[in-house]
Amino acid sequence: MPAGLVRTPFTETTERVRERVDQRLGRFLDAHPLPVADLAVAEGQRLLREFVVGGGKRIRPTLCYWGWRGAGGDGEHDEAAITAGAALELYHAGLLIHDDVMDGSELRRGRPTIHRSLARSPDRSAGRAFGDSAAILLGVLAQAWADELMGEIETDRDRLRRVRELFYRMRIEVISGQYLDILASDAQRPEVEAALAVTRFKTAKYTVERPLQIGATLADAEPALLEAYSRFGVPLGEAFQLRDDILGVFGDSAVTGKPIVDDLREGKHTVLIAQAFARADAAQRERLRAWHGNAALDERHADELRRIIVDTGALAHVETLIDRRVEEALAALADCSITPHARQALTLLAGHLTDRTR
Amino acid sequence: MPAGLVRTPFTETTERVRERVDQRLGRFLDAHPLPVADLAVAEGQRLLREFVVGGGKRIRPTLCYWGWRGAGGDGEHDEAAITAGAALELYHAGLLIHDDVMDGSELRRGRPTIHRSLARSPDRSAGRAFGDSAAILLGVLAQAWADELMGEIETDRDRLRRVRELFYRMRIEVISGQYLDILASDAQRPEVEAALAVTRFKTAKYTVERPLQIGATLADAEPALLEAYSRFGVPLGEAFQLRDDILGVFGDSAVTGKPIVDDLREGKHTVLIAQAFARADAAQRERLRAWHGNAALDERHADELRRIIVDTGALAHVETLIDRRVEEALAALADCSITPHARQALTLLAGHLTDRTR
Repeated sequence: MPAGLVRTPFTETTERVRERVDQRLGRFLDAHPLPVADLAVAEGQRLLREFVVGGGKRIRPTLCYWGWRGAGGDGEHDEAAITAGAALELYHAGLLIHDDVMDGSELRRGRPTIHRSLARSPDRSAGRAFGDSAAILLGVLAQAWADELMGEIETDRDRLRRVRELFYRMRIEVISGQYLDILASDAQRPEVEAALAVTRFKTAKYTVERPLQIGATLADAEPALLEAYSRFGVPLGEAFQLRDDILGVFGDSAVTGKPIVDDLREGKHTVLIAQAFARADAAQRERLRAWHGNAALDERHADELRRIIVDTGALAHVETLIDRRVEEALAALADCSITPHARQALTLLAGHLTDRTR
Repeated sequence: MPAGLVRTPFTETTERVRERVDQRLGRFLDAHPLPVADLAVAEGQRLLREFVVGGGKRIRPTLCYWGWRGAGGDGEHDEAAITAGAALELYHAGLLIHDDVMDGSELRRGRPTIHRSLARSPDRSAGRAFGDSAAILLGVLAQAWADELMGEIETDRDRLRRVRELFYRMRIEVISGQYLDILASDAQRPEVEAALAVTRFKTAKYTVERPLQIGATLADAEPALLEAYSRFGVPLGEAFQLRDDILGVFGDSAVTGKPIVDDLREGKHTVLIAQAFARADAAQRERLRAWHGNAALDERHADELRRIIVDTGALAHVETLIDRRVEEALAALADCSITPHARQALTLLAGHLTDRTR
């Protein structure tokens, strides 16, 4: 159970959804052995399975489930929503594996990333090529399987077609968002507008809006509800990412599972950092330039950057952006016609996803 | 028209298939703009489009088409077979883009590879990260779109389901084959068995068997014909790859579009090279070890390695393997019940795919 969350029938349901999604994923993977008999291939597949089944917050399946319940989905017959959620999670695993290759990240969920686990030698330069190539392939494999799992949803033909359309749109959006992300990271300095566009496509639509809509479509929702889920999901997703950016700098590494200096050391071009750059005076900007994205950054430099982020007002500004978006999302939720139970669940979820102690 | 091929009604049909596949790909890409307005994203998309529409031998669509005709597909109403072929080609583009990242290749089809084109600086180390990341994303994009295009085939529900199943199987097979390939390349020295397994999964099933079967399924072929296409397609596909391996060392760079020392310089673990290693005496093996996969290999060293490949009997052996497989494929083709016109076309195609002057 996430820290700070009161135990309610809603959290119990959420936990059950997670368990069932994990079981569904395990069942799918067991039923899809690779066609080649090779120990090293089996090792790659085992790592992928552990990564898929063994972790993650299951945010997308949870949203898919409540999107479906909100549209009148019957809690006793939720197999289709669970399968869709499992497919979203499998796709996401593939995307994270590629993300970690592109960022050169060492840790994910507190454990070595797939490309690091498969690197042939602890020395980065020597062993890197094989690990990266293997991770590219395992990521592609997870994404291909996600697609196959999506096709296993038992529902009528028309709904499956509409679910697939949303899934296809979601994929293109998140790939576009990632492309914007690597472009932004390649820019001279972080820009607020670019970081906001990444937040919108890479997180808000992908993590919140589309999972809700996929769930709703499985319950044959009216177009009006899909639009309401957009008005709720996009600002909530943005707030979620902005909170993530703050936690990536000020959070507790025991919760996020990665060293808390990582985001600063990698030089992520977040809205938070872009705001700090935009608001910094000459001396502060010089320090940001020197240490943001510097591989030699240690805890002392990280503290200095944190102070600048606070002193420039960037942190307070991003907190305001989050508040405004959460408000907007909750207003859209209050307005739309969904079941009271789902409204309550999504309200709690909105609070949880944007909570300071998440 | 490929060199050395007599102009026949068959070659005319093949050329028409290529043109229509290119048109179908262009139409699909035009109808699927990316959802973000950004000049640099548009540039990536333009490169991808050029790569997809502007080249390639269109082997898979051609086989898909003739697989369909062979199963009784009506030459006047071939839209479904063309769309399936276009989807195979789009998938293949994504796969090649990733392949080039994994191999660090500079050229493809005589032009800079996608990751090189997008590298930010001519200096490899400095500009590499962005180009590689962008190419990973564009490859994933092409593969996602392939899936979407496969779903646009207009046929009845049951056939589309069976086509999708074959397409899914094909994807998993080729990913497994690529995994075997990077494992083999990582091994101390090329091994014949490992190279043969790669040939089977990465080329034979992916390039020949599955495209034929996908086409046949669109014409509602009996299981017996799908099996016959396996007996024809797998040995033909293996022969095709073995021929490719020979041409990669002894071929004419004007035809293959890449410097003919590339395969030797990259140190590809082909059956040809594995045979040379297995048959070499101590002195020859020492030279193979020194120069196969050596970035400093020049035309003089390449000639020395070629001489060893000939002197050990590796070349003659691989030519025998090719002959045996072509024979096996043609025997299967002679035996199966397909239309005479398709049998003729597939016979010519088999000759062309394994021809010494291809």
